[in-house]
Amino acid sequence: MPDYRQLEKDFLELLKEQKAYQEALALIQWDLRTKIPPKGVDQRSEVIGFLSQKVFQITTSEKMKMYIDSLKGKASNPIIQRSLEECEEEYNRNRKIPEVEFKEFTMLQSKSETLWQEAREKGDFAQLQPYLEKLIEYNKKFAEYWGYEKNRYDALLHVYEPGVTTELLDEVFPALRRSLAGLLKKITASERKPDSTILQKHFPKQAQETFSLEILKRMGYDFAAGRLDETIHPFAIAINPRDVRVTTRYDESDFRMAIFGTIHEGGHALYEQNIDQAMAQTPLADGTSMGIHESQSLFWENFVARSEAFWENHYSLFKHIAPDEFDDIPFSDFYCAVNEVKPSLIRIEADELTYCLHIMVRYELEKALINDEIEVRDLPELWNQKMEDYLGIRPQSDREGVLQDIHWAAGDFGYFPSYALGYMYAAQFHQKLETTLDVESAIKSGNFAAIKNWLGENIHQYGKLKKPLEILQDVTGEGLNPEFLVEHLQSKYARIYQF
Amino acid sequence: MPDYRQLEKDFLELLKEQKAYQEALALIQWDLRTKIPPKGVDQRSEVIGFLSQKVFQITTSEKMKMYIDSLKGKASNPIIQRSLEECEEEYNRNRKIPEVEFKEFTMLQSKSETLWQEAREKGDFAQLQPYLEKLIEYNKKFAEYWGYEKNRYDALLHVYEPGVTTELLDEVFPALRRSLAGLLKKITASERKPDSTILQKHFPKQAQETFSLEILKRMGYDFAAGRLDETIHPFAIAINPRDVRVTTRYDESDFRMAIFGTIHEGGHALYEQNIDQAMAQTPLADGTSMGIHESQSLFWENFVARSEAFWENHYSLFKHIAPDEFDDIPFSDFYCAVNEVKPSLIRIEADELTYCLHIMVRYELEKALINDEIEVRDLPELWNQKMEDYLGIRPQSDREGVLQDIHWAAGDFGYFPSYALGYMYAAQFHQKLETTLDVESAIKSGNFAAIKNWLGENIHQYGKLKKPLEILQDVTGEGLNPEFLVEHLQSKYARIYQF
Repeated sequence: MPDYRQLEKDFLELLKEQKAYQEALALIQWDLRTKIPPKGVDQRSEVIGFLSQKVFQITTSEKMKMYIDSLKGKASNPIIQRSLEECEEEYNRNRKIPEVEFKEFTMLQSKSETLWQEAREKGDFAQLQPYLEKLIEYNKKFAEYWGYEKNRYDALLHVYEPGVTTELLDEVFPALRRSLAGLLKKITASERKPDSTILQKHFPKQAQETFSLEILKRMGYDFAAGRLDETIHPFAIAINPRDVRVTTRYDESDFRMAIFGTIHEGGHALYEQNIDQAMAQTPLADGTSMGIHESQSLFWENFVARSEAFWENHYSLFKHIAPDEFDDIPFSDFYCAVNEVKPSLIRIEADELTYCLHIMVRYELEKALINDEIEVRDLPELWNQKMEDYLGIRPQSDREGVLQDIHWAAGDFGYFPSYALGYMYAAQFHQKLETTLDVESAIKSGNFAAIKNWLGENIHQYGKLKKPLEILQDVTGEGLNPEFLVEHLQSKYARIYQF
Repeated sequence: MPDYRQLEKDFLELLKEQKAYQEALALIQWDLRTKIPPKGVDQRSEVIGFLSQKVFQITTSEKMKMYIDSLKGKASNPIIQRSLEECEEEYNRNRKIPEVEFKEFTMLQSKSETLWQEAREKGDFAQLQPYLEKLIEYNKKFAEYWGYEKNRYDALLHVYEPGVTTELLDEVFPALRRSLAGLLKKITASERKPDSTILQKHFPKQAQETFSLEILKRMGYDFAAGRLDETIHPFAIAINPRDVRVTTRYDESDFRMAIFGTIHEGGHALYEQNIDQAMAQTPLADGTSMGIHESQSLFWENFVARSEAFWENHYSLFKHIAPDEFDDIPFSDFYCAVNEVKPSLIRIEADELTYCLHIMVRYELEKALINDEIEVRDLPELWNQKMEDYLGIRPQSDREGVLQDIHWAAGDFGYFPSYALGYMYAAQFHQKLETTLDVESAIKSGNFAAIKNWLGENIHQYGKLKKPLEILQDVTGEGLNPEFLVEHLQSKYARIYQF
């Protein structure tokens, strides 16, 4: 009989090695997006390639396979058992693709990403088209290798949001869309027109940083285990479980970018900072899915920082830090401006209400692409048509249409739905929290500890120990339900737009 | 017959792997000393251990040995040939030590470094003594394993300054000491007393940074291949050949720390930035020795930035950036204050003249320790006596005596002489440069390109392609010669102290 305890030890050692490579890679990624001088990039890319290959080799090694086969079902605790399952998933995902195809795909991704920047700049979809076609072919092949029950797209969804299926999304998204469309109609019809241009006054970077740091502190972000830096595309990154960094971008003519961005990334970071340390050196020390991760950032951004209660407490601090030009804005104008709803063409600039409509456009198109129902060459027209159908506006160029996001050009299909799932999960968590805490009063008091602790206890601590829908079920007692998001938006905008 | 070209290719591939690990390690080191949040450190140390072990495994691998044996003498170009020699040196250095001893030594180093901080704080030499004894025992053993011709200490010197021997130092140091003592006597006797306390006025960090950045730019430091950050113990680090970073420390009550520190580290960085790119992925992409490296930092710090010509040009810029309190300092008082000579107890605070005397104290003691001529327990007393003999002052505690430096506590013996060698090399290079360029006028004009290019062409570009004394010989036509340093100090201080 094999010595299981020794095998477990060896397995954990291998996970540590993998983590060591991943930690080095994470630091390199952070540096690449915050500090690296331009001439250093080329050589650093080589290092990324080398270290990523080492991780890939571990995840697909015979040794790994041996641990999985020997230990699965015999693990001495749930952390090891779930780690084995995670490793098995990854082993299968990576091993099922022939090595040569994986390499070709990776090279194609990298070329296509670079090309995308140029194509977007010029609004030239034709330039990207052949690359997209190939990337989709690979995604279809991979989905076949990985397998699925009902819909080929499920295999891709599974990578980002295990448990969520095309069937579920096809039930939930249309219902959500109808509700959002109804709300949007009322808002458009309202005579109340919040004006966000009143917010576009000069606000020096330094002062924006002061406010951002103060809010992060109040959220309970641990600065002894993290830091805030400047970047072009904001992100949060766990370099190790005790070093979880936040980045933000300062636009001196629009403070919303930095302040809501910092709070959003801070929400991601709180998740990573509060995963149980017992999992620190395992693959479970990570958010359980893209969607649950997004629910945490959106919880803080939308349910906390865009709420009336938040600004009732923080508007005086804001005015204290902001330049004098903001002094004349009455509270209610300010709060409404921060929550202005206005269909727009660019996803990352969308408001809280229309955001999910952007996601549905993408979801329906990528699902159809993967299932051979539409052609890549028709994408621009289909995109524009859907934008008109769902948001009532039509892009005038592919730059503000199908070319705006990097995801497809980077070969990522099945990722977009996570964003909308994050909105719904966040609303479900919020509704549940309200049954045990007067959330509004907590926000108004500016003491966020109760909120942070509830999220920590119910979601963060588990890392990947629970699957996304398992967490949702355990916390709320039900599955995915778009109603709570709709209720939240309905009650919020009814006040703002008075309908 | 083996396929040598293929073997060479494979050898270069192995060097690239090694470089990839080293690049990740260098970035981690930079981060550790500039940005990391405190709680992230423990886990990061594990990663350092893991990656360092990978490097060690490559340098001591059978594969490496095979390349060395197969290719040495048959390399198709000098870069490959010298790389093979470097790899052989390292292979031998690491393989000659039994693995268990190397591991014990490494663990001892790390414990001793930590302990040293406490011992220094308390001025308690006895606490460190048993560790020092063991570390010295290991160093003696290692020296025996590595081998030497005449003096056991040579084996240690060789690690930092290949080619330089105890015999050479025993000839050069006493001569230099006598000259420095003579100069010091004249200075002490002089009625001129420059007063450096006039420089100790409040100078905000931001403004110090502005001045530092401007000087780095003028030196020709390439900011597209580097950056300046804040740290506690300043350093320069080549993360890769196109990413060479400088760090500095801001003391708001004494600008000299940051400004001369930045220029010093900038000198190191210029060296690394200007190594021939053809060596980029080999062990030759590095300064050729500690001493030559130090000669480059000292060239810029002492021969450029502490010169009268430099301040004649830059004093107006300095006054423009510095707070108003500096306005009243006449140029000559300022220049003399910056060059005040005053025997002091702490090496890193020493002036340009007395610095080498601090080094000689350490050299003589560590040489005697390695050759069993003195006992560790007698070190404090011997240290204090030598300080009195050479500098005329006596430490009142071991904190400002034998415990001040980390080097011995970290197990590094044979390192200290490099600092003094750097002074002498720099003076020799400076004298040579003066035969082809009016250095004073170049400095006065503020256009440092001619200086930077000369150092680049004569020293920097070669990396480790030439050994330290080979570079010295090729550039100056002679070996180590302390006379030029003495001449430089004599002529400089004769003006300042009027003797």
